[in-house]
Amino acid sequence: MAQNDELSRFGISWKLGFTKTPKDEPSEWVPATVPGAVQLDWAKAHKWPDHNVADNFRSYEWMEDVFWVYQGKLDFAQPSPGEKIFLVCGGVDYRFQVLLKGVLLHDQEGMYTPFEIDLTGKARSGDSIEVRIWPVPKTRVSPADRVQANQSCKPAVAYGWDFHPRLVPLGIWQDTYLEKRPDCHLLNAEISYDLNDDFSSAGLRCEIDLSAAGAGSLQWTMTDPAGKTVLEMKAPADGKKVLLTGSVGKPGLWWPNGQGQGKALLYGSSVELKDVSGKLVQKLSSRVGFRKVRLVMHPDAWENPPHRDFPKSRSNPPITLEINGREIFCKGSNWVTPDIFPGTMTADRYAGQLALVRDANMNIVRCWGGASVQKQPFFDLCDEYGIMVWQEFPLACNRYEGTDAYLKVLDQESRTIIRRLRQHPSVVLWCGGNELFNCWSRMTDQDLALRLLNRNCYDLDPKRPFIMTSPLDGMGHGHYVFRSPEGKDVFRFFSDASCTAYTEFGCGGPSSEKLLKKIIPEKELFPVKEGTAWETHHAVKAWEPNSHLVLDVIERYFGKCENIGQVVERGQFLQGVGLKCLFEEARRQRPKASMALNWCFNEPWPCAANMSIVEWPNEPKKAYYQVKNSLRPVLASAKIAKFEWREGDVFTADLWLLNDAPEAVGAGRVEAFLRAGTGETFLLGWDFPGAGANRNLPGPVLRFQLPRYETDHLELVLRAKGRQEWDSEYFVLYRPLEIKHSDAAAQLNQ
Amino acid sequence: MAQNDELSRFGISWKLGFTKTPKDEPSEWVPATVPGAVQLDWAKAHKWPDHNVADNFRSYEWMEDVFWVYQGKLDFAQPSPGEKIFLVCGGVDYRFQVLLKGVLLHDQEGMYTPFEIDLTGKARSGDSIEVRIWPVPKTRVSPADRVQANQSCKPAVAYGWDFHPRLVPLGIWQDTYLEKRPDCHLLNAEISYDLNDDFSSAGLRCEIDLSAAGAGSLQWTMTDPAGKTVLEMKAPADGKKVLLTGSVGKPGLWWPNGQGQGKALLYGSSVELKDVSGKLVQKLSSRVGFRKVRLVMHPDAWENPPHRDFPKSRSNPPITLEINGREIFCKGSNWVTPDIFPGTMTADRYAGQLALVRDANMNIVRCWGGASVQKQPFFDLCDEYGIMVWQEFPLACNRYEGTDAYLKVLDQESRTIIRRLRQHPSVVLWCGGNELFNCWSRMTDQDLALRLLNRNCYDLDPKRPFIMTSPLDGMGHGHYVFRSPEGKDVFRFFSDASCTAYTEFGCGGPSSEKLLKKIIPEKELFPVKEGTAWETHHAVKAWEPNSHLVLDVIERYFGKCENIGQVVERGQFLQGVGLKCLFEEARRQRPKASMALNWCFNEPWPCAANMSIVEWPNEPKKAYYQVKNSLRPVLASAKIAKFEWREGDVFTADLWLLNDAPEAVGAGRVEAFLRAGTGETFLLGWDFPGAGANRNLPGPVLRFQLPRYETDHLELVLRAKGRQEWDSEYFVLYRPLEIKHSDAAAQLNQ
Repeated sequence: MAQNDELSRFGISWKLGFTKTPKDEPSEWVPATVPGAVQLDWAKAHKWPDHNVADNFRSYEWMEDVFWVYQGKLDFAQPSPGEKIFLVCGGVDYRFQVLLKGVLLHDQEGMYTPFEIDLTGKARSGDSIEVRIWPVPKTRVSPADRVQANQSCKPAVAYGWDFHPRLVPLGIWQDTYLEKRPDCHLLNAEISYDLNDDFSSAGLRCEIDLSAAGAGSLQWTMTDPAGKTVLEMKAPADGKKVLLTGSVGKPGLWWPNGQGQGKALLYGSSVELKDVSGKLVQKLSSRVGFRKVRLVMHPDAWENPPHRDFPKSRSNPPITLEINGREIFCKGSNWVTPDIFPGTMTADRYAGQLALVRDANMNIVRCWGGASVQKQPFFDLCDEYGIMVWQEFPLACNRYEGTDAYLKVLDQESRTIIRRLRQHPSVVLWCGGNELFNCWSRMTDQDLALRLLNRNCYDLDPKRPFIMTSPLDGMGHGHYVFRSPEGKDVFRFFSDASCTAYTEFGCGGPSSEKLLKKIIPEKELFPVKEGTAWETHHAVKAWEPNSHLVLDVIERYFGKCENIGQVVERGQFLQGVGLKCLFEEARRQRPKASMALNWCFNEPWPCAANMSIVEWPNEPKKAYYQVKNSLRPVLASAKIAKFEWREGDVFTADLWLLNDAPEAVGAGRVEAFLRAGTGETFLLGWDFPGAGANRNLPGPVLRFQLPRYETDHLELVLRAKGRQEWDSEYFVLYRPLEIKHSDAAAQLNQ
Repeated sequence: MAQNDELSRFGISWKLGFTKTPKDEPSEWVPATVPGAVQLDWAKAHKWPDHNVADNFRSYEWMEDVFWVYQGKLDFAQPSPGEKIFLVCGGVDYRFQVLLKGVLLHDQEGMYTPFEIDLTGKARSGDSIEVRIWPVPKTRVSPADRVQANQSCKPAVAYGWDFHPRLVPLGIWQDTYLEKRPDCHLLNAEISYDLNDDFSSAGLRCEIDLSAAGAGSLQWTMTDPAGKTVLEMKAPADGKKVLLTGSVGKPGLWWPNGQGQGKALLYGSSVELKDVSGKLVQKLSSRVGFRKVRLVMHPDAWENPPHRDFPKSRSNPPITLEINGREIFCKGSNWVTPDIFPGTMTADRYAGQLALVRDANMNIVRCWGGASVQKQPFFDLCDEYGIMVWQEFPLACNRYEGTDAYLKVLDQESRTIIRRLRQHPSVVLWCGGNELFNCWSRMTDQDLALRLLNRNCYDLDPKRPFIMTSPLDGMGHGHYVFRSPEGKDVFRFFSDASCTAYTEFGCGGPSSEKLLKKIIPEKELFPVKEGTAWETHHAVKAWEPNSHLVLDVIERYFGKCENIGQVVERGQFLQGVGLKCLFEEARRQRPKASMALNWCFNEPWPCAANMSIVEWPNEPKKAYYQVKNSLRPVLASAKIAKFEWREGDVFTADLWLLNDAPEAVGAGRVEAFLRAGTGETFLLGWDFPGAGANRNLPGPVLRFQLPRYETDHLELVLRAKGRQEWDSEYFVLYRPLEIKHSDAAAQLNQ
């Protein structure tokens, strides 16, 4: 929650072993890295090959069902009188006990809740502490799938998903150390605020928890984004709870990426504890972003169902995010677990990934409920980059029965998550989990687990919206293909949709040739076949017999692929065409639609093909650039009727000017051309009158009977006069009678 | 919650006056009846004419905006040492203070939360106690409508509704007395239970709250429905909280009306406090009904939306009530406030009204959120009669903004309501309030008031389902007319509907001639006109220009009404035809539809016309008997294509056997006849194979070309061979070319 400075910390050196029972001693120890995962330590010690390659992950299977023992050697300077020594741990995955010299000190289920143990007088430097971890929780022995996770707060994805191998991490996954503290020390300092209605002032509260009343003093300081002090208060540290209140006039507001002026504005807060002599003892630092968030109805929502339609049902629930009184079109992506082992994630890795999110003109990520809740630096970076976070609790695609045992751990873990994240301006929405109201999960609004989450969010964070799951009524998940099994391409089926929010949709695309060559044994590389690393790495038979690569559709459009290069080139190209169509169509449906989040941004390991637009660990696929292009704040856009055209067809496309910028766009001109081979035909000039801030402008419909061209594809080119940065191009197939499909591919590869 | 016996009680004699400020003394006192309402006392003392007649209620208007003062003379036997004297009050409407000799003892907003004040040592017999009541809460001065109630827990209906005059009660509306208690006395004894999965045993908990630890003893006794003791436990009264646990084997289950064997089964519980000598000091009695309740999805719900429809939204939320593992088709009605002044309601009045509910074959009432939450005897009687209660919190047709002040009173009042009602087996569903998600209310799932109610229900009563409002997705409210403005009659528009639950629908009908003559001045009685008592009593311009009487539709079908008798006769007849059609159609749509609740059962005062089927105070209209007939457990039913037929039309009707009985129905035969005037034509014999318990059976479709008849109406007659109690008759209009409509009416009046 807050950064803790000034106190002395001591690392612990760990070793690791496993046993068959919770009591035994391991017969073999290996060095352990903390934070990390038992699997990685064991593999490293035994020089196993990379778990990301081929099907090497299968050799980890047995690790799920044993007890793991961490033994840590304590090495610390003896505390002076009036000082204490604490074991501080950010999280252990998943069910564990902590023992000191055989004495049980702590017993917990749940990876998210940190713990502290006062070791003063109990432990001496040189002692060993043990963390004993239970096997992976499973509600049934087989099959080995996500259903086994339906009574725990483990990320379900690790039990096997269509983009994640079966590999369930265990271990100490968060920072763990010894810390020396004075008797009276800071436990927590949390800042909250109330922005008034016209944003002219923010009332601030600083709630300080101390371990004990002391003789020292407290100082609370706030600085504005430029570092200037805007508030300074002092108080005696004379109680276990100290509440300070103040206010900031005309606070600079935190805005999502693209909506503010440059960087998202963050204020600094520090709470210092000083001893009687005025010496700094401890300092807790944090940041504050001033913003309001609400979920509101889209403009016409209350008219649907119409007033006089009886029997009358309800309107769709609200899903439009309003930040600081402004309705925001949410452009973003689904954030899945960025690594099989969340304990290995670092601020640097997050920074690289989130910079890609920001640079793609995205303003939101949906932190999907199947994944683990991300580590602290993730949220700090989202605060900085103006990336809104839709945060789900760890429930996905299961029926989480509200048993006493499950509700107990869910209650504990959700309270921890809420308390940890509620200070982040980037976090704008709580969600119970993924697809819980769909037929493969079969949860409902009545499920106690979801009512508990609503309760906890209400109790601990009432100003932030909460939804039970995605999709809710009016929202849409899917489609996940370029061409539906019924034979409709993405241009056709998506323009029929009329959702309030598109919170999952996507097209599969292969990874780069370089990555494929690394993870697929050479003899399996081409042709693509089932039963090979193509399958274990999700290119085929991932969630449908024919997914995510969907080679038959690629070959339908571009002809037979002759080598791995063509598979990658054409597959990545098609993914980009599909996502460009999907994102722009969702944007055109604003304001009824207010969200477009593709499935998915990243991936937990190298998939051979996946719907992600960035391949593991952080390499953009071609589609990433198409998405980035579609999400420019302002662009000329075309809704094209279909993907495959023939000589003689009347080519039709609705022209639009899309504007998600917070400034109005003045009058201008867009010209449309059809490029066929090397020639271009001028189709139409649209002199548009301008568009308001965050408003789209519909334009004319192009209609043009396609003559005979000697080409197998066309490009619709939109040029904005004097605003080249708004130009757009759209690729479609074209078929004169005698040209074969594969020629399009030949041209692509040039 | 529990009946309190054995303690000495002393009544208080009250007088009443009003002032312009919270501090003044009234200039005039009148005798006051407690429980009651200030309006009734003042009117009685000043011999005002009946507020139920004509527009007499208008003279009560000023009473909303003054302060009312109750002064009560205390008269009690002085408590002995070790005894205390308490002022006990069940509820004061709405914002009030209690003062003793000018000293403030209690300050409260909210009519539902009872209070006790320990007067020991403070008051002496002969002292006066004052209850000062604030004016009616209003969030705006005008217009005088329900919106004024949008920040309070007052029943919104009293601010004026389409069946309730503007008359907002104030006053002490619940029992209020002095009670002498020993120092150590029982505060509460609440029984809860866990039924195991196969209903073979119930684990019981008795949580006893005492005012202080004492030297006496506690005895908890439970008796079965026959009065036999099934559990007896003793414990010392040595703590403020005493928890006793036990179990009952093979408990008799509580079932809704029509689903069990005869009367709903209730067990008795008594908790006795005895002093050291074993003498009974105090006894709290209550009843327990063993049952499980869940809201479940209807059988096909998960297939909708279909698995492969993308983008995919969610399925409708569950609304099928499952009691003891059995899905129940809910047949019932909307219970509105049974009197303008809820303080006047008694067990006897409730008993008469609820006997009509039970005898109409109903098994549920929806206690509508616009009304006050009913008094205790209502729920006791519902427990006894097997009438399930859908209980709404006091929110209706407003946007209740989640301000701190409103959330505080809603929190207090909802906790009281939940704690008071959760022991009743009849209460099967909590609901946030009425039509809150519709465009005239504009609340959403995000509103803090509704999230607070979810939180409180979850915290205090997690085993009972909670929904935020009605209608939710898939549920339907309306229509409220026999013939829609678009010209479709109820036979046509309702068969197009496909809801999961019909929780409001109705047709207006006039009250009896006798009642009309009482409430409408003679000179206004006929013809029916706007601007008369017909309008103040809601027959015209109630919610649409032309409602609830809808004379133009009556006259369209039956010709011009020549006198008040014809208006009543034809209007009441048409209401019955409409409701019969609506209820049976909803039943035929089982199991997708699981609820049919007409709007409404009763009314708060004598309406000239209303959708109620029982006129105030408790007189069934003709439609009541049609509803009762439609709700028989088993009946032959026909879905008739339309209401108006012509010579030459092909008369069509789908035959059904409806079975809501918990037993299967064997094979049998239904014969269909068409009666025209005095003659009957045999149309079809349906030899049906039988129907399972709680299962409907579809039959053949009648098709019969209508010949020329010398009549203006027809009756479809269904006769079940050997089961006369299943027979049904349906009235429709018929028009040969030269017969005038008014002849149908002439026949009706014979």
